[in-house]
Amino acid sequence: MGDFHYVKIGDRECLQEWKDKISKELDKVMDFWIQHSEDKEYGGFFTCLSQEGIAYDDLKYIWLQGRQVWMYCRLYRKLPRFHRPEILKAAIAGGEFLLAHARPSSDSLKCAFVVTRDGRAVKIQRTIFSECFYVMAMDELWRTTQNEVYKKASREMMDQIAYWVREDASGLGRPELPGASPVNSMAVPMMMLNLVEQLCDEDEEATNKYELLGAWSVERILQHIQRDGLAILENVSEDGKELPGCIGRHQNPGHAIEAGWFLLRQATRHSDRTLAQTALEKFVLMPFSSGWDEEYSGLFSFQDVDGHCPTQLEWNMKMWWPHTEALIAFLLGYQETRDLQLLENFQTVLNYVFTRFPDPDHGEWFGYLSQEGKPQLTIKGGPFKGCFHVPRCLYMCEEILSTLLEEDDKAIAIC
Amino acid sequence: MGDFHYVKIGDRECLQEWKDKISKELDKVMDFWIQHSEDKEYGGFFTCLSQEGIAYDDLKYIWLQGRQVWMYCRLYRKLPRFHRPEILKAAIAGGEFLLAHARPSSDSLKCAFVVTRDGRAVKIQRTIFSECFYVMAMDELWRTTQNEVYKKASREMMDQIAYWVREDASGLGRPELPGASPVNSMAVPMMMLNLVEQLCDEDEEATNKYELLGAWSVERILQHIQRDGLAILENVSEDGKELPGCIGRHQNPGHAIEAGWFLLRQATRHSDRTLAQTALEKFVLMPFSSGWDEEYSGLFSFQDVDGHCPTQLEWNMKMWWPHTEALIAFLLGYQETRDLQLLENFQTVLNYVFTRFPDPDHGEWFGYLSQEGKPQLTIKGGPFKGCFHVPRCLYMCEEILSTLLEEDDKAIAIC
Repeated sequence: MGDFHYVKIGDRECLQEWKDKISKELDKVMDFWIQHSEDKEYGGFFTCLSQEGIAYDDLKYIWLQGRQVWMYCRLYRKLPRFHRPEILKAAIAGGEFLLAHARPSSDSLKCAFVVTRDGRAVKIQRTIFSECFYVMAMDELWRTTQNEVYKKASREMMDQIAYWVREDASGLGRPELPGASPVNSMAVPMMMLNLVEQLCDEDEEATNKYELLGAWSVERILQHIQRDGLAILENVSEDGKELPGCIGRHQNPGHAIEAGWFLLRQATRHSDRTLAQTALEKFVLMPFSSGWDEEYSGLFSFQDVDGHCPTQLEWNMKMWWPHTEALIAFLLGYQETRDLQLLENFQTVLNYVFTRFPDPDHGEWFGYLSQEGKPQLTIKGGPFKGCFHVPRCLYMCEEILSTLLEEDDKAIAIC
Repeated sequence: MGDFHYVKIGDRECLQEWKDKISKELDKVMDFWIQHSEDKEYGGFFTCLSQEGIAYDDLKYIWLQGRQVWMYCRLYRKLPRFHRPEILKAAIAGGEFLLAHARPSSDSLKCAFVVTRDGRAVKIQRTIFSECFYVMAMDELWRTTQNEVYKKASREMMDQIAYWVREDASGLGRPELPGASPVNSMAVPMMMLNLVEQLCDEDEEATNKYELLGAWSVERILQHIQRDGLAILENVSEDGKELPGCIGRHQNPGHAIEAGWFLLRQATRHSDRTLAQTALEKFVLMPFSSGWDEEYSGLFSFQDVDGHCPTQLEWNMKMWWPHTEALIAFLLGYQETRDLQLLENFQTVLNYVFTRFPDPDHGEWFGYLSQEGKPQLTIKGGPFKGCFHVPRCLYMCEEILSTLLEEDDKAIAIC
């Protein structure tokens, strides 16, 4: 796919063309996963897939198992063309794999980070993220199947995560060290807000139960607005102050933009105009402006707020996921505000993305480009890339564009 | 510095020109560290240094603290122009910092991975490497000062490491997991062999004590020759078999070449011609041949023995240290064998290195180049790059070239 050209941005014709292209790309991407990633013997998914879709490793990363179950269920539930028995079957097999093998010990809800093909734990991270994607999978699986086992599993795990995050983190196994001050890493409240949105959707009981957690998450995310409102910093102190050194100056534009659309959804649910404005200005537009590479286009992976060279070797690589988050954020922002500048930014990112990331030969996207935009890894999936950011973005953009087109229909009907 | 051109490789004129250039570069590199890295208030060294030598973070990584103490002592002890009181003073201050702060708990010899500027532990790795560089620092400091405190510290830690490696690793804190088979990672026996060489140098007591550990290390390194002798694999099973998946197919050309010169030194000490031949053929020449980028020159960082794309994002980057290891290995190999092919390889790497890595403006080397050879990070030091691989290489090459030139003098005198 090349550039998109329109008479006028935001016109019906423009929205329709975007929707068609995005919807076609979603089909292509899902075909790749459906064809190559399902483990028909043990359940769950192979995610270490080569350019052609061949499994070059059979390890199962729990983040990616949970995300793929979620994605399959969400598409099955929401888009009629994905309401197919084989998709449901694979999602359930993935869910059952997680129920049986995500937790290495039956005494604890702590999940592994990666397990063998048959489910034996290989590595455990001392964080909450495997558990969070487990919750997403279980909750979406419950909504899809109405099987209460999955609901119970998601709620149990959610309560455990909330306890680790808000009450006592010692169960995660991280040693307390005198030089390691507690850090408010933006990933944690972001993930919590994302889970609150997931669990509370059309569920009054959950909405009542998790409302305070949602508010707490928003407050913790907002603490990352630093430098007199001129920068989002990825890590701050527990009381919302800038931390010294690299950790304090660390910026992750894609993450800030993702936080932006999480906040925007929260603002919409609560009709909170101030929060919506903060989300768009501080978390979407500001990191997009400072994180965009003026020389070669694309979003940098990491930056240092003072302009030092980051120490992460991949700092200047253009990764798939910050760009998918930017697409969601700009389109959602436009839906909420009808600000055409957001739609122009959407188009800028869309043009960059569609000329660089998709693999025309074998489907799905390359994940890791050089600063100049050339693929550096040919893999379609690996320990951190699976069936998630690309299809979630395409599905959400398709859904938003459909809504915009429907509203346009209604407007015409009223005229 | 540009290309090196000589009438004939290996001639006296050629060796002398190399020695002069290398010796001048060593001075320039050490000037950078001496000028910018010493923490005169707390002792130890700043290693997070920008292109210009400005400290962009004051965290102290224990690997790099130990390595810099070792490097300062070694140069002080071996090269008259570095036998300067300020170098000894900084080395002692670094050693005292390690004695006081490397171990977070007085109950255990386990060292931190990184500490704050004033020595409070920030992070502990569940490996042996901080401890190994602590041993190197303490042993070299003892040899330099004759202060028995340092000798005692090095021997105590060495015995602890040997116990973790050969008897019981549970003190390192790694959980036993059903899917994580024990791995013989080449880094461990390599490090042990390196320490054995360090401790046994002109020390009969240590030689007797650690002889068996040296032999064990060699045996464990040789287990990494796989695929009918056609590949060095970084990780094998405890009984020397190839492991399944990415971990089993993982190759690290620079590491294999470094193991090559460790083995070559061991072979020389024991007059073991078979081992010397294996070291050169299997660990130096083979990885150099398969790890060298025919398109853009330079050594790849990581490869997959079956040609799959590695999952490490930096796999195709050209890092400083594999190239310094190759320079040492080829020159040492030539010294032992007088095989001119090894000297030609030395020249190939030297030309690549001197046209790409050194920073003509501020001294020291860039550490991280793109596949095409363009610096991707401008830092001179960071969590994994400090005052070690570059000056160790330059010092060792200068020493070998001096010996070759002296032998040439003697040969002429005999004529």
